[in-house]
Amino acid sequence: MKFELTKDFIGELNKRIENKDQKSIITMITDCHPADIAEILDELEFENTCFLFELLEDNIAADVLVELEDDLREELLKIHSPKEIAEEFVDNMDSDDAADIISELPENKKQEVLSHLEDQDLASDIVDLLNYDEDTAGGLMAKELIKVNSNWSVMRCVKEMRRQAEDVELVYTIYVVDDNNILLGTLSLKRLLLTDSKSIISNIMKEDIIKVSATMNQEEVANTMNKYDLIVLPVVNDLNHLIGRITADDVMDIMKEEAEKDYQMASGISEDVESSDTVWEITRARLPWLLIGMIGGLFGAKVIGIFDIEKNYQMAFFIPLIAAMGGNVGVQSAAIVVQSLAGGTYTLGNISQRLIKELGVALVNGIICSSIILLAAYLLGYSLLLSITVSIALLSVIIFAALFGTFIPLTLDKYKIDPALATGPFITTINDVLGLFIYFLIGQLILSI
Amino acid sequence: MKFELTKDFIGELNKRIENKDQKSIITMITDCHPADIAEILDELEFENTCFLFELLEDNIAADVLVELEDDLREELLKIHSPKEIAEEFVDNMDSDDAADIISELPENKKQEVLSHLEDQDLASDIVDLLNYDEDTAGGLMAKELIKVNSNWSVMRCVKEMRRQAEDVELVYTIYVVDDNNILLGTLSLKRLLLTDSKSIISNIMKEDIIKVSATMNQEEVANTMNKYDLIVLPVVNDLNHLIGRITADDVMDIMKEEAEKDYQMASGISEDVESSDTVWEITRARLPWLLIGMIGGLFGAKVIGIFDIEKNYQMAFFIPLIAAMGGNVGVQSAAIVVQSLAGGTYTLGNISQRLIKELGVALVNGIICSSIILLAAYLLGYSLLLSITVSIALLSVIIFAALFGTFIPLTLDKYKIDPALATGPFITTINDVLGLFIYFLIGQLILSI
Repeated sequence: MKFELTKDFIGELNKRIENKDQKSIITMITDCHPADIAEILDELEFENTCFLFELLEDNIAADVLVELEDDLREELLKIHSPKEIAEEFVDNMDSDDAADIISELPENKKQEVLSHLEDQDLASDIVDLLNYDEDTAGGLMAKELIKVNSNWSVMRCVKEMRRQAEDVELVYTIYVVDDNNILLGTLSLKRLLLTDSKSIISNIMKEDIIKVSATMNQEEVANTMNKYDLIVLPVVNDLNHLIGRITADDVMDIMKEEAEKDYQMASGISEDVESSDTVWEITRARLPWLLIGMIGGLFGAKVIGIFDIEKNYQMAFFIPLIAAMGGNVGVQSAAIVVQSLAGGTYTLGNISQRLIKELGVALVNGIICSSIILLAAYLLGYSLLLSITVSIALLSVIIFAALFGTFIPLTLDKYKIDPALATGPFITTINDVLGLFIYFLIGQLILSI
Repeated sequence: MKFELTKDFIGELNKRIENKDQKSIITMITDCHPADIAEILDELEFENTCFLFELLEDNIAADVLVELEDDLREELLKIHSPKEIAEEFVDNMDSDDAADIISELPENKKQEVLSHLEDQDLASDIVDLLNYDEDTAGGLMAKELIKVNSNWSVMRCVKEMRRQAEDVELVYTIYVVDDNNILLGTLSLKRLLLTDSKSIISNIMKEDIIKVSATMNQEEVANTMNKYDLIVLPVVNDLNHLIGRITADDVMDIMKEEAEKDYQMASGISEDVESSDTVWEITRARLPWLLIGMIGGLFGAKVIGIFDIEKNYQMAFFIPLIAAMGGNVGVQSAAIVVQSLAGGTYTLGNISQRLIKELGVALVNGIICSSIILLAAYLLGYSLLLSITVSIALLSVIIFAALFGTFIPLTLDKYKIDPALATGPFITTINDVLGLFIYFLIGQLILSI
């Protein structure tokens, strides 16, 4: 039912490619979806990838190209001339995919590809789409859609739809516009089926539809589609002219991207990496955060060095506990803020309200944790004064880390910096160092080190 | 264009509700989408929420109910009789939403609601849907769909669609089945429009369609829909009978849920919380991880206590660095594994291959970091022996934490436990303790403490 990529499959395919046995190769992949073929190509040596790719029919190759990993697509496009790219691939694509692919090409190649397109309507749609930022509604939308005039009858509407459907692969919604292309509403297939053929569209269309502006940020587009449970969304320009539509599959990609970005930030990975990337790519994505952690560690060493730890060396025992708790609480607080901001559920909150609630949570958690540690440390045989020091320090560190973890992402967001930056190693490191400082300060007071 | 919930709006609404000014209240919310009304209700005192909810027309109230937060929906359903729930709300819902709502009711109320439904087809659809696990394709699907027989002509097809469309709110795809309800293919609106009315459906339908089994896990459903860029997906039973369809909006909810769960796990939050939850709810979600961190901290204290730190108290300076780096590396490694597993991109990898690559990354990162720390510590005035100790310990800790961070989630996944458990405080804590142990062991050898 669903294609499963196995080692045996790849082994067999490689063997047939070595033998240049074209017919038997095509038999193997003939039932595969373009997304599956893209996965297969990703697993082959580049030489074999090229051989297999050349065997594909143009319209399949176009679909496969869209589904490929960015790096591999770039490599494959490099070995094709602008004319080939235009006629074999781009001419077979929808406008949104075509624009995405062309935008990745070097500047001089872009123009050449556009000039070789046979479908001149597509060419002008692509030029139009290239004007929009990649991460806006305009950058996401496709131009292919079915639209009808509100003055038409159902009969004329069906006739026009028939003409327009030639260019549109999948029809989900019929848009209704006025003479100036201003979006007025939608017409469901249901209404079209159930209404007699002489009715006028404006009487049976649904008004009050959800639409977005072409300049809206892609994250907001995803939130809108998600909130209103839409699977296709019309895009308008500043004059409310209908200029395109976004489908849920594109928005799913965005959601996945954004979620991965946040997750990776929280885990201390700075670039989009997968386990299939090379050692060097993975190293590059991880090293920066480790360096931040190291700098924090060196500061931590300096902080401990300020105090006379030799006299009260037992304080060292609880350094890991204090540092870890500061980090953990900070990340928890930051994560809740980041998630609320991302989900757009921050409608009515403001920074001070949020800080007060976080203070409440920190007090409850802090009092529970510091009571437990007071008891546990004393029962484990550490001195009462040390136990009290650790307990008070822990309460202070939890409160401080919570406020800090809430404040930083909210502040970053206010200045339009991605608040997810504040999660992960960044906030852990800062809270580590500050936690140690608080701990030794309290130790100095109680244990007079 | 998009409704924005403001404090002023809520203030004004509260005032009108106090005055029981029904007409002016309705004016305020008349243009709001049910999802917006749900957001508004969430911001009001419960008494006002009830008042406003009772003013809604039945079909709007049904849509609003579906969009509400779980807790509030439960409260509102409690104050309605089974008969009211059936006739006012459930009768106005699609089968998937209706089944979700009824599944949340207490057992005795379920039966009563079902018996009061006017639409008996809906009742039997709901009973059917209640048989599937909530987190499977069957639990996600709706029964409402348009299907035609492969033997019909286009003309008969349109006639039948007209009849079926009465029950289906939105039509995205027309499914083609044989006489035994076995799914054969789909018919695009495009084909229907472009083909003459005497053609037989089996000649114009699209075969080779992607479908899923009713027992497929929801995460896999989301991956399938995402991979093949689908916005609607048919569901079949073991006999390949067409039994329902899943739309992209439901899958977007799943994707959001899964991403939030992973993100919260990585951040040390154990339940689904939002910044709008109460202090106690947020505390409860965060405390368990803090307790794990504390237990780790106590173990850390014991580990340091084993060694004679009094003689070499300077080793304490680098405890935070060693602990932090072990934690950071472990989380990074685990995150890459968790993400690959979630995205289903682990097709060809196996545990030993993955560990070898991770070893490579750890070696590169470890050698860079330990070289820097050797130089930095020595230049900052720490003794050469201490600097060497820290440097060697850091390299060992990075390698160890990386392997551990990779191994644990892969092992959890093998035993069908959510690998995301391995990220966040859990792995940080274990790596903290083990890192300290390695550090002091090396210290004992080099500094002979």
